[in-house]
Amino acid sequence: MSEKLARLKEILGEVSDLGRATSVLDWDQQVNIPPMGGDARGQQLATLGKIRQEKFTSDEVGRLIDDLKSEFAGADSDDAAMIRVAARNYDKAKRVPPSFVAEQAVVASRSFEAWLEAKGKSDYAIFLPHLQKMVDLVHKYISFFPPADHPYDTLLDDYEPGMKTADVKAIFDGLRPRQVKLIKAIGEAKQVKDDFLRKKYNEKKLWDFGEEIIRCFGYDFNRGRQDKAAHPFETTFSVNDVRITTRFEADNPLAMIFSTMHEAGHGMYEQGVNPVYERTALEGGASLAVHESQSRMWENLVGRSLPFCEHFFPKLKKTFPNQLEGIGVKAFYKAVNKVEPSLIRVNADEATYNLHIMLRLELEIAMVEGILDLKRLPEIWNTKMREYLGVTPPDDAQGVLQDIHWSAGLIGYFSTYALGNLISAQLWEKIDKDVRNLDDQIRAGNFDALLGWLRENLHQFGHKYDPQDIVQRITGSKITPEPYVRYLTKKYSEIYSL
Amino acid sequence: MSEKLARLKEILGEVSDLGRATSVLDWDQQVNIPPMGGDARGQQLATLGKIRQEKFTSDEVGRLIDDLKSEFAGADSDDAAMIRVAARNYDKAKRVPPSFVAEQAVVASRSFEAWLEAKGKSDYAIFLPHLQKMVDLVHKYISFFPPADHPYDTLLDDYEPGMKTADVKAIFDGLRPRQVKLIKAIGEAKQVKDDFLRKKYNEKKLWDFGEEIIRCFGYDFNRGRQDKAAHPFETTFSVNDVRITTRFEADNPLAMIFSTMHEAGHGMYEQGVNPVYERTALEGGASLAVHESQSRMWENLVGRSLPFCEHFFPKLKKTFPNQLEGIGVKAFYKAVNKVEPSLIRVNADEATYNLHIMLRLELEIAMVEGILDLKRLPEIWNTKMREYLGVTPPDDAQGVLQDIHWSAGLIGYFSTYALGNLISAQLWEKIDKDVRNLDDQIRAGNFDALLGWLRENLHQFGHKYDPQDIVQRITGSKITPEPYVRYLTKKYSEIYSL
Repeated sequence: MSEKLARLKEILGEVSDLGRATSVLDWDQQVNIPPMGGDARGQQLATLGKIRQEKFTSDEVGRLIDDLKSEFAGADSDDAAMIRVAARNYDKAKRVPPSFVAEQAVVASRSFEAWLEAKGKSDYAIFLPHLQKMVDLVHKYISFFPPADHPYDTLLDDYEPGMKTADVKAIFDGLRPRQVKLIKAIGEAKQVKDDFLRKKYNEKKLWDFGEEIIRCFGYDFNRGRQDKAAHPFETTFSVNDVRITTRFEADNPLAMIFSTMHEAGHGMYEQGVNPVYERTALEGGASLAVHESQSRMWENLVGRSLPFCEHFFPKLKKTFPNQLEGIGVKAFYKAVNKVEPSLIRVNADEATYNLHIMLRLELEIAMVEGILDLKRLPEIWNTKMREYLGVTPPDDAQGVLQDIHWSAGLIGYFSTYALGNLISAQLWEKIDKDVRNLDDQIRAGNFDALLGWLRENLHQFGHKYDPQDIVQRITGSKITPEPYVRYLTKKYSEIYSL
Repeated sequence: MSEKLARLKEILGEVSDLGRATSVLDWDQQVNIPPMGGDARGQQLATLGKIRQEKFTSDEVGRLIDDLKSEFAGADSDDAAMIRVAARNYDKAKRVPPSFVAEQAVVASRSFEAWLEAKGKSDYAIFLPHLQKMVDLVHKYISFFPPADHPYDTLLDDYEPGMKTADVKAIFDGLRPRQVKLIKAIGEAKQVKDDFLRKKYNEKKLWDFGEEIIRCFGYDFNRGRQDKAAHPFETTFSVNDVRITTRFEADNPLAMIFSTMHEAGHGMYEQGVNPVYERTALEGGASLAVHESQSRMWENLVGRSLPFCEHFFPKLKKTFPNQLEGIGVKAFYKAVNKVEPSLIRVNADEATYNLHIMLRLELEIAMVEGILDLKRLPEIWNTKMREYLGVTPPDDAQGVLQDIHWSAGLIGYFSTYALGNLISAQLWEKIDKDVRNLDDQIRAGNFDALLGWLRENLHQFGHKYDPQDIVQRITGSKITPEPYVRYLTKKYSEIYSL
């Protein structure tokens, strides 16, 4: 290894260590911190972030990357990929002045407070001036980058490297009418019963049950753990320390099990990344959407499938005999797949979820294009909700104010959720061809072949390939909505006898 | 505030943030880490340590300290103290070359492994060559500093700033004969019964009981928490996030409660430091010995006192009626104060504990003077054990190999434990004068006046004063063994009817 490459790896290794130390502090803040510990923790996180940024954007790193870029140009080796990704990250980090990062942090912090208050009082007017400022800052952020085909491309690229707004629009345009039609048909069909899911379930027993499921999936507790937090998430401290959290909701107790499967999906992805990528720009997953494809796959394509219900429902019934008395596996399967157009994204079922996202994507693009009158946002939101989902928010708290993202200036993020759904189904069609008797294996509670396939074809590559490239490598085509439409149509035609 | 002072505070604030981030990662490693997570964590800790060291020992910090030192010379303000302490730390950090720090880390890591093996096999010969290397490194470390009155002074100063070997020797020389005599008298008296302490106690109930006690003491759970770890310790992430750990030992279950009180003593000290010292060289306690005075005070002078037993034993008996059937408060009080010369330091009672320390101090001083034949160390150890405590280790695992400290090159550390005991009694005599009806308050479970006194006279000052200075300020005299001897003699004369 050349001296320059060794030196770059040394610095990037320290940058990675600082990032992962940050993750530990952040995890601890969400899982353990005593009530008054937050302020000092914020300060510690700010210092780590600042030092990490200084270290990464040093002139030395710039020179090393420049020299190595030409040396490794065109190669497909891990080192070449590492240099390519590091160069892209470096370029982005250098374009955004530290003063802007600091300004955005301050505005975002105030904006978050305003959003909290606005949501609590269901009063959009409180949030409006702050949202305006955040959108202005997003425009300023875009201005640091060379003009793209569409200004939204710059934002999207931070989450889905290489992905274009036009691609996402085309994907969603192909999806929207068919998904609206499906939901309409379901709405006219005979509804499924799910009241038994809302009974009282013991939290500890559900916790243990969820852990048993993901142990069975292949989530490695020697290299991870599950804790309780206000919001479920996955976080990575190293390939050998990948942690997840979950939460218990008394009015929707079984959600905890599905949340555990979801986060374990993220976790198994991270546990499967090639360990040689540790402490380089290639650690972690390919993108947010590809990551989401893994969580959604284990939660929905596995967790909410009939074969899996056939495997785990008898065990669940043994654990909760009173709550599930008289319920058969088919009734349970239908209940956990019940479709109900609703107001809140995070509670949406598989059939309606993407429509929540598309609505947001359209509004975000209009914000970035500068054609959206932010004063009229609630009204526009409500109109679209009626159009796509047939429901009307009774107030802004259950409408435009429901999500935290815009208050933090996270514009471009939402689409990764919907893209994740699409990728999960696209991969699944390929897996179903490659893995013999996939359904039978799932029915038998055997996930070795499935996880093995994912490790070999996706997980091991970490951040080496861009999202469209890895999907293309695996499935032979870029991200497309067709498999997801086929998946939804087949599944819900059976459940609702369409 | 001058521009230079502001700049120094800014840098030292970041140095503190890095140190406390390190503490979070370390705490997490001891409390939460999954089995395979350790290697990456070690790497992350090494990187944080390196960056912290680079940041602190920069030329800019050196120039700022030099300029500010003369400006603030002789002042007693917080800023002056901060500069004085920072200057001392800077001088120490600059004297020790990074290459030495790295070499010591490598040798210590191997030495630790060898010590573990040697202890497991009770075979000192395995450890001997590594101990020799660690002692050589200690000599080298001392050589980086200007000659002191005694070479051991350099080591001691790292734990007890300003303290001299001659002081410690004088203190211990005054203590040893009287403590040996007391133990001998106790050995000839009628022994106390403590078999009921070794019965089966429910871990969860003991845990809750311990937490209730320290909540009552004044340990603030809004600014702290207790977790389980292999070794009990206290760690500080900020004045508003001070955590403690404890452990359960099946063969000595009540030890958990006393360990909780001990660590809460450390914790209340940290929670009481003036918040304006946060992120400066004055955060944390005055020294290890002063810190230990607080843990020992709450564990022993409060926790093992008769008034406190009168307060908490009835509650304990209500929680464990079967285990404590027929036991009265006096019998319980005697049992938790049972004196028994024994082989293992960490299990030693109050009367014998200091002798374990004195033995180690004498050996350490001889090591540093270069007059100790390390090959003969087990033999010398055993002779001293017989002389001081009247017991002979049956093997080296229960003798010279019992403690981890020397394997890590921690020479100079042990005496802080014994000094802590002395300081606790010295402070207590003053508290007993200042606080009216102290015993009655403790008997009533009221600790407000006691904690208030400690906050006002000791805790708030953090690291502002050196240990001898703060003890002198509070009690009117430097550290002296007299109060501790009086305390032990009075307590054990009653318990053993001497």
